[in-house]
Amino acid sequence: MTSKEIRIGIVAPGRALDQSIADRVTALAGDAAELIFHPQCFLRGGHFAGPDSARADAFVEFANDPSLDAIWFARGGYGACRLLETAFERLGEAARRKTYMGYSDTGFLLARLAREGIGRVAHGPMLADILREGGEAAVRRAIGFLSGADGEAGVEPGTRAPGKYAAYNISVLASLIGTVHAPDLSGVTLLIEDVGEYHYRLDRLMFTLTSSETVRAAAGIRLGRCGPIPVNDVDFGQDEEEIARHWCARSGIAYLGRADIGHDVENKIVVFGARSASV
Amino acid sequence: MTSKEIRIGIVAPGRALDQSIADRVTALAGDAAELIFHPQCFLRGGHFAGPDSARADAFVEFANDPSLDAIWFARGGYGACRLLETAFERLGEAARRKTYMGYSDTGFLLARLAREGIGRVAHGPMLADILREGGEAAVRRAIGFLSGADGEAGVEPGTRAPGKYAAYNISVLASLIGTVHAPDLSGVTLLIEDVGEYHYRLDRLMFTLTSSETVRAAAGIRLGRCGPIPVNDVDFGQDEEEIARHWCARSGIAYLGRADIGHDVENKIVVFGARSASV
Repeated sequence: MTSKEIRIGIVAPGRALDQSIADRVTALAGDAAELIFHPQCFLRGGHFAGPDSARADAFVEFANDPSLDAIWFARGGYGACRLLETAFERLGEAARRKTYMGYSDTGFLLARLAREGIGRVAHGPMLADILREGGEAAVRRAIGFLSGADGEAGVEPGTRAPGKYAAYNISVLASLIGTVHAPDLSGVTLLIEDVGEYHYRLDRLMFTLTSSETVRAAAGIRLGRCGPIPVNDVDFGQDEEEIARHWCARSGIAYLGRADIGHDVENKIVVFGARSASV
Repeated sequence: MTSKEIRIGIVAPGRALDQSIADRVTALAGDAAELIFHPQCFLRGGHFAGPDSARADAFVEFANDPSLDAIWFARGGYGACRLLETAFERLGEAARRKTYMGYSDTGFLLARLAREGIGRVAHGPMLADILREGGEAAVRRAIGFLSGADGEAGVEPGTRAPGKYAAYNISVLASLIGTVHAPDLSGVTLLIEDVGEYHYRLDRLMFTLTSSETVRAAAGIRLGRCGPIPVNDVDFGQDEEEIARHWCARSGIAYLGRADIGHDVENKIVVFGARSASV
């Protein structure tokens, strides 16, 4: 399947999408896929793209729509965790026959989908990435993946081999650790990234991850990019890779090197769960 | 016991203490108690008051010193979580016959002490609070409590009745949730406070707390002060109490009102664990 046979539904579980972004991404998609924007994407209510109920309802409606092949999350920001308690019990069979893609804050939903084995879950670019300099490349990568046109081309190279994978924003995964929504990472190669956190916060986040049985059960950690890190009043004395190595060593988790993911246009796609050679 | 019969040992598990603070607090303590500063308090290494090993060793040395009645943490900042894996297995019998007091980042140590039932654990002012405007009152409250001279006078009023209590910084407790160091909060009235987090971050932190079985086992939550909250580009639309009420209601946790704790000079003392009428 290529061209407009592929129908991609778009919802915004956190903050609202600007119409101008929708227009630009639609133009860029061209005939590669049909993009269907849920009106909820453009709602605004305080911090969020509409109230919790509207965001949950939009996600459930599109996930349960058998005419859609994929759900593509519009953007991050904050707010997806507010859907966890109310959305998932309403997902039906059609929700299982879909691909879901996003990153950053939408990792809350990726985690719960993966936990429940619903659909094909992928960590990758979102529509709002078009606002970055050179962002068209990220959005083309996402559309190429979701439409099936690009095969494995946009997939993070280290995750193409058979194995089990997951990718998360560090802050989002740390927020999930110890909750009833936490993912099962047993035997999973875990790719993590973050953006704009102080070194001391990254260190504290890595304490949480590596001090949990959830992450200690993983096959190992690969560190993506952590974006521009603010300058603290006192230099922390370790960079993000030294921090990751420190906590992995202390907790007996294998540190497996860097990963090609992050809050940037180079952000490659990571498909969750077990991948076999036939994918 | 009052006057210099009470000996209080001071260590700095996170950031270093300025000598000028030590001098001011010593003068303020007068004859109420003898303050013994571990030299580690004044070490500086990058972000921390010396390397992890020096901070852990100082804590263990003073905790195991039978001539000291209490350990008073010098200040917060960040770094106490780095002591958890190496310090506690070395604590001996003398460590059990002590009071420990601090708050903010030192909550990592309070949690682990409470978890292991070591000593009398209290959430309350630290030495560096003397830098706040009117901070002498906070430091006097701490010394009055640690020396025993003030009885219950400095104790948070709602925690004087028989019951089980604990108090934490929200960010610190969220960082502990799901780790091997997480406290047992079953049946505990949980007092929480924070400082300087954006509303959306407080919301995410409250998601973590209230979505965990650890906090869901508590008797209820009382919300302390959350300090000056930075202004976000979009107003969140809920204040900190509305956020706490939202998450408590959603997760079936009793919201028990406000608490008189926070990163300020009014910060009252909360004694952890079960309190009987005879305390």
